[in-house]
Amino acid sequence: MGMVGGGKDAFIGAIHRIAANMDGLIELSCGALSINPEIARASGKMLFLPEERTYLTYEEMIQKESVLPEDQRIDFVTVVTPNFAHFAPAIMALDNGFNVVIEKPMTFTLDEAKRLKQKVEETGLQLCLTHTYSGYPMVKQARHMVQSGALGNVRKIMVEYPQGWLSRLSEREGNAQAAWRTDPTKSGKSGSMGDIGTHAAHLAEYISGLKITKICADLNTIVKGRALDDDGNVLLKFDNGASGVLVATQIAAGEENALKIKLYGENGGLEWAQQEPNTLLVKWLDQPMQVLRAGSNYTAFLSSYATQNCRTPGGHPEGYLEAFGNIYRNFALTLQAKLEGKEPEKEALDFPGVEDGIRGMAFIDSVVASNHSNTKWTDFTI
Amino acid sequence: MGMVGGGKDAFIGAIHRIAANMDGLIELSCGALSINPEIARASGKMLFLPEERTYLTYEEMIQKESVLPEDQRIDFVTVVTPNFAHFAPAIMALDNGFNVVIEKPMTFTLDEAKRLKQKVEETGLQLCLTHTYSGYPMVKQARHMVQSGALGNVRKIMVEYPQGWLSRLSEREGNAQAAWRTDPTKSGKSGSMGDIGTHAAHLAEYISGLKITKICADLNTIVKGRALDDDGNVLLKFDNGASGVLVATQIAAGEENALKIKLYGENGGLEWAQQEPNTLLVKWLDQPMQVLRAGSNYTAFLSSYATQNCRTPGGHPEGYLEAFGNIYRNFALTLQAKLEGKEPEKEALDFPGVEDGIRGMAFIDSVVASNHSNTKWTDFTI
Amino acid sequence: MGMVGGGKDAFIGAIHRIAANMDGLIELSCGALSINPEIARASGKMLFLPEERTYLTYEEMIQKESVLPEDQRIDFVTVVTPNFAHFAPAIMALDNGFNVVIEKPMTFTLDEAKRLKQKVEETGLQLCLTHTYSGYPMVKQARHMVQSGALGNVRKIMVEYPQGWLSRLSEREGNAQAAWRTDPTKSGKSGSMGDIGTHAAHLAEYISGLKITKICADLNTIVKGRALDDDGNVLLKFDNGASGVLVATQIAAGEENALKIKLYGENGGLEWAQQEPNTLLVKWLDQPMQVLRAGSNYTAFLSSYATQNCRTPGGHPEGYLEAFGNIYRNFALTLQAKLEGKEPEKEALDFPGVEDGIRGMAFIDSVVASNHSNTKWTDFTI
Amino acid sequence: MGMVGGGKDAFIGAIHRIAANMDGLIELSCGALSINPEIARASGKMLFLPEERTYLTYEEMIQKESVLPEDQRIDFVTVVTPNFAHFAPAIMALDNGFNVVIEKPMTFTLDEAKRLKQKVEETGLQLCLTHTYSGYPMVKQARHMVQSGALGNVRKIMVEYPQGWLSRLSEREGNAQAAWRTDPTKSGKSGSMGDIGTHAAHLAEYISGLKITKICADLNTIVKGRALDDDGNVLLKFDNGASGVLVATQIAAGEENALKIKLYGENGGLEWAQQEPNTLLVKWLDQPMQVLRAGSNYTAFLSSYATQNCRTPGGHPEGYLEAFGNIYRNFALTLQAKLEGKEPEKEALDFPGVEDGIRGMAFIDSVVASNHSNTKWTDFTI
Repeated sequence: MGMVGGGKDAFIGAIHRIAANMDGLIELSCGALSINPEIARASGKMLFLPEERTYLTYEEMIQKESVLPEDQRIDFVTVVTPNFAHFAPAIMALDNGFNVVIEKPMTFTLDEAKRLKQKVEETGLQLCLTHTYSGYPMVKQARHMVQSGALGNVRKIMVEYPQGWLSRLSEREGNAQAAWRTDPTKSGKSGSMGDIGTHAAHLAEYISGLKITKICADLNTIVKGRALDDDGNVLLKFDNGASGVLVATQIAAGEENALKIKLYGENGGLEWAQQEPNTLLVKWLDQPMQVLRAGSNYTAFLSSYATQNCRTPGGHPEGYLEAFGNIYRNFALTLQAKLEGKEPEKEALDFPGVEDGIRGMAFIDSVVASNHSNTKWTDFTI
Repeated sequence: MGMVGGGKDAFIGAIHRIAANMDGLIELSCGALSINPEIARASGKMLFLPEERTYLTYEEMIQKESVLPEDQRIDFVTVVTPNFAHFAPAIMALDNGFNVVIEKPMTFTLDEAKRLKQKVEETGLQLCLTHTYSGYPMVKQARHMVQSGALGNVRKIMVEYPQGWLSRLSEREGNAQAAWRTDPTKSGKSGSMGDIGTHAAHLAEYISGLKITKICADLNTIVKGRALDDDGNVLLKFDNGASGVLVATQIAAGEENALKIKLYGENGGLEWAQQEPNTLLVKWLDQPMQVLRAGSNYTAFLSSYATQNCRTPGGHPEGYLEAFGNIYRNFALTLQAKLEGKEPEKEALDFPGVEDGIRGMAFIDSVVASNHSNTKWTDFTI
Repeated sequence: MGMVGGGKDAFIGAIHRIAANMDGLIELSCGALSINPEIARASGKMLFLPEERTYLTYEEMIQKESVLPEDQRIDFVTVVTPNFAHFAPAIMALDNGFNVVIEKPMTFTLDEAKRLKQKVEETGLQLCLTHTYSGYPMVKQARHMVQSGALGNVRKIMVEYPQGWLSRLSEREGNAQAAWRTDPTKSGKSGSMGDIGTHAAHLAEYISGLKITKICADLNTIVKGRALDDDGNVLLKFDNGASGVLVATQIAAGEENALKIKLYGENGGLEWAQQEPNTLLVKWLDQPMQVLRAGSNYTAFLSSYATQNCRTPGGHPEGYLEAFGNIYRNFALTLQAKLEGKEPEKEALDFPGVEDGIRGMAFIDSVVASNHSNTKWTDFTI
Repeated sequence: MGMVGGGKDAFIGAIHRIAANMDGLIELSCGALSINPEIARASGKMLFLPEERTYLTYEEMIQKESVLPEDQRIDFVTVVTPNFAHFAPAIMALDNGFNVVIEKPMTFTLDEAKRLKQKVEETGLQLCLTHTYSGYPMVKQARHMVQSGALGNVRKIMVEYPQGWLSRLSEREGNAQAAWRTDPTKSGKSGSMGDIGTHAAHLAEYISGLKITKICADLNTIVKGRALDDDGNVLLKFDNGASGVLVATQIAAGEENALKIKLYGENGGLEWAQQEPNTLLVKWLDQPMQVLRAGSNYTAFLSSYATQNCRTPGGHPEGYLEAFGNIYRNFALTLQAKLEGKEPEKEALDFPGVEDGIRGMAFIDSVVASNHSNTKWTDFTI
């Protein structure tokens, strides 16, 4: 693995490294860790990278790695730069034969997303989009239960993602994360919806197996002086006629990272909360609620997608890093199988990809368009 | 107290009686308990009413009670009939000098509500509307904390009221509650919004002290064959510019009575859930969350509105019936004070009244109008 | 009902009145509410008692009531005085033909308890002991599930009752409750074990259907200057060989009334917590945990003992007062059936009685004996 | 790092590897992964170990590694064999200049433990004992809060560790974990107390800063045919006079890994549950409970021991593997500092060591002795 961005003090770069490291399947071999050469070098040193593979630009990295002998060069490039700087290294990596892992939202614009998809299809390489929350075993279990038909036709989805960290104008107080995420030239055309709304929308579609078709959005910039929305409420329609509500907000003072979804079918409902991720509540219309727990011994009640994405028995809580690790592990197992000329296991193939990235960018576009419209419903278009 | 409606097997009538009974301040003295004379008589007997005060119609009850000597006749009439039959007995009671307790929604139409308000103002009598949830001590505490300014300006409100009991076409399966509540000739122009959406809207306004000014509603009739909406999602704007989301649904299979509110201000947020009503979560931007509990000994942290609406020390859970009882008790204490020519305590005056009833009916009207409109925002008008 | 003790400002007297009042089956008709004549009179007035039935001593009350015509006099006497003053009024009431409700612990000494039992047997009258917690519907459900054999043989019971209200020397700071409850001349030979340990022991025996046979106790007086123990840890053996742990403490600073029980059988376990009483967790060895909820519509999963002790549908929380009310209601239904010459329903007969009172007093004796012993196990003897 | 034991399919070996891997500070360089040569070789291959460093015995590993050049050889040996096979490789590692990580309980007997301590002192090397639960940030926070005096003098500790996985005679059903852990020749003289009771005792002493001085134990072998106790209840006395209760059981059917501790001081209490490890409840005598959360932004309320053992911001749940990783990371940082001739940071030095191992073995001895004694209290002796 070679990393673009993620120098020391970057939040998400460190997370990617722990996640990639976790299962001993992936090694960080090189990086272009910062556009600031000093930080790039210092970060490489901190991460025990050899000097000759501590690059100063992603162009240099991709070029030099692509000419290394096959058994030495990296298998994939991980792009963890701010949103505006996803597209160029991803395209170049694919062009040079490297698979790609990329942070969400996949690109800066929907157009870039479409071009990236075309490139992936042309090259036949793998692109993995780190919609972390779909890596949790109980999220996979929820998806499986919907697919199995146990809940009947899905009727309603409520998904909310309240955070409080942008309750003040932190971007003016030296918070580097806040600075780029609230800057439309780096983050894109929406703040709250690009940063966390896309996660919520992905989660709703991933679990339900449905697609959003219509949107009615109300975006707000609550904190004065901010350049992008920091709050939004969205009504949704899905392709089976189900309705939904999506809330993503970064000004919910006192909230941490409280992503939560409730989904109701004809026979029962599901509830999952990211802050207690090892639990899936299964609410039945005619019988007591069941509490499904990750890693449990009652494997007959659990999907293989849930059981294969756990590392420990029930009661040994796994968390965000393990969910992230699952995405890397499944991606790595898929690459490994391909390298060995095998068909990957179906569970390994279960990681978000370029199609999810396209839908994420289209979600942002549709939400912003709806917010500017006086008409109630805006079509979700790609 | 004389009761109109609420014969044996009626749900809400029995609740009103327990609530009224609880504190030994109110006695059920007479009733017109059913339009079916046999049920009326049997119910009166079951409730130990004397035969001569077991009336067969509300007209008879109000007329006969009004000519009893002052020390014998009732002080107020409680109306617990289906929505369409609220207005007539309430008006007649007021016209004959009786105070009134009435179930929500207050009337069948907004116009009736306005006429009732006029009558209340003319007569100077008291009308109490049983928006039960505002009777909980921790709801009062939440209101107090917002009023005190501790949370700063309110920015966002999320209120949801999922129930699952109408997930099937129960109105065709002999469920009497379901039958009238899904019948537009008895219930009014909205199902989910009239029955529970009004509770959610009242709770949001009660706690925040704000008023809803704009609405964007999506109502759905999920269960085929049903005559009224059983599900709805609503975007809200409040008079201080805050935004909100309100969900009321009766097809959330597996949910009981899961009314929940989250409110966020500049400095922190509040969370209260009806199914665990003795707890109020107070989430601070810069310090650990606090868990405020009803009945606790740390009275310096609690409003007098919270402490005076508890009957037991912390850890002795009080519930729905006690909240309901608080509304009756405060109403009774207010009447008592008035009878004694005193000014009621401010805590006793804290029960929902005719103005809340007007706003509830206007909420239903606005939501239904918005649902039929293609324009995003509909003004909340009275 | 006539009440002995429970004048204004008494804690438990007010609770008894609300509980008795709740269902409209019982009327407070007279009282000897305080040994202080002024308080007795003022309390009677506050409770709307007629002057001629506001007695100054229990002797007067029982004597005068016993000569009233049958249709006017009370059916039972409720004794809510401090522990040392339970026995005399209870015996006198029985001797005069009145049934009795009595607070726990039933008497001051085990000997008194035995004499009371003898009197109950002689007179054929009913004695009801208000072990409140056995009135909760989900406690009854737990008992039923054990009895049904669903969990297999019971192996282990963990019951804890932490309170924090005696963390300071409150008895010296004007706290009347603390004063008598920590005074061995009023409370009995144990503080923590008499006041709350007996509740915990009763709950364990009630749910499990087992009897404690051996005890190993460690009692502590944590707060300096206190005259009775305020903390205790007890190892238990039950008559089927199961083992257990019981903790009762009043110095658990920050705890409210956190009675909780966990019971494990061969096939699964149960967990119930008084502070969230409408929920019973059912943990299965080989399948997901189920969450049983009071008032739920899935009545096939619930015992009639659970369903008949609820007043509201699922999601309308009932609490401590309703549990207390269940004890009064079942007692009243039993008396009513007897008065009508009928056999009471089996669910109505499910209230604690004189045998439970005997075991409670024996528990206190055994725990205190064990605490003074250097031998590990002390037999639980009656 | 070189690993002794932990071949494929071993539970705890895999956990150690993930934990060691997590932060990129430690590399698995060699192993003697099984006493079965085929499994040893296959496991080495699976873990990408070079063939020449895939050893067949620990003796071979330690010998060959000790003669490698300093920059190639391992820094420490991790011993993850069953309990009876801890001592020999640990002693040999120390004798050959390697630091040691070792699973708990540290040895098979207290005598071995004492000899190991002597060896550690002689060699001046580091020994790290993986009492995982002390690696959680909120456990460290709890310890810090006690040390700070905020809670006042500690009065009572309740610690429980219920598991259900040995509810059946699994050791006869091919469960390898169950087989050795219930075998006195491999596990030691106690089952439940050696396997999980030692964790509970360590947690109580770690958080409270107190030492157990007296024990009264009741051990049970619940499942017929089992050779060791699978359940135990213990009364405790601590060196400041505080009392406590410790429960460790493996037959609590339906429980996962439900380690939980409650500790009460003069001014308040703490509660921490391993299955929701990012939350620490702080219960105050005179103010609302606070909920402290790992990774939160209110760092003024958090100890540096808590903040430095988190990898992610609040709301990104970390779990068991991260807690385990903290122990490895702190150990690695300590070794690193020593190698660089620096004094390790105080937070890095906070990992369990040989003294904790001694106390764990003495705990097992004392509990077993108490269980066989008819005297109530047995001294905790080393």
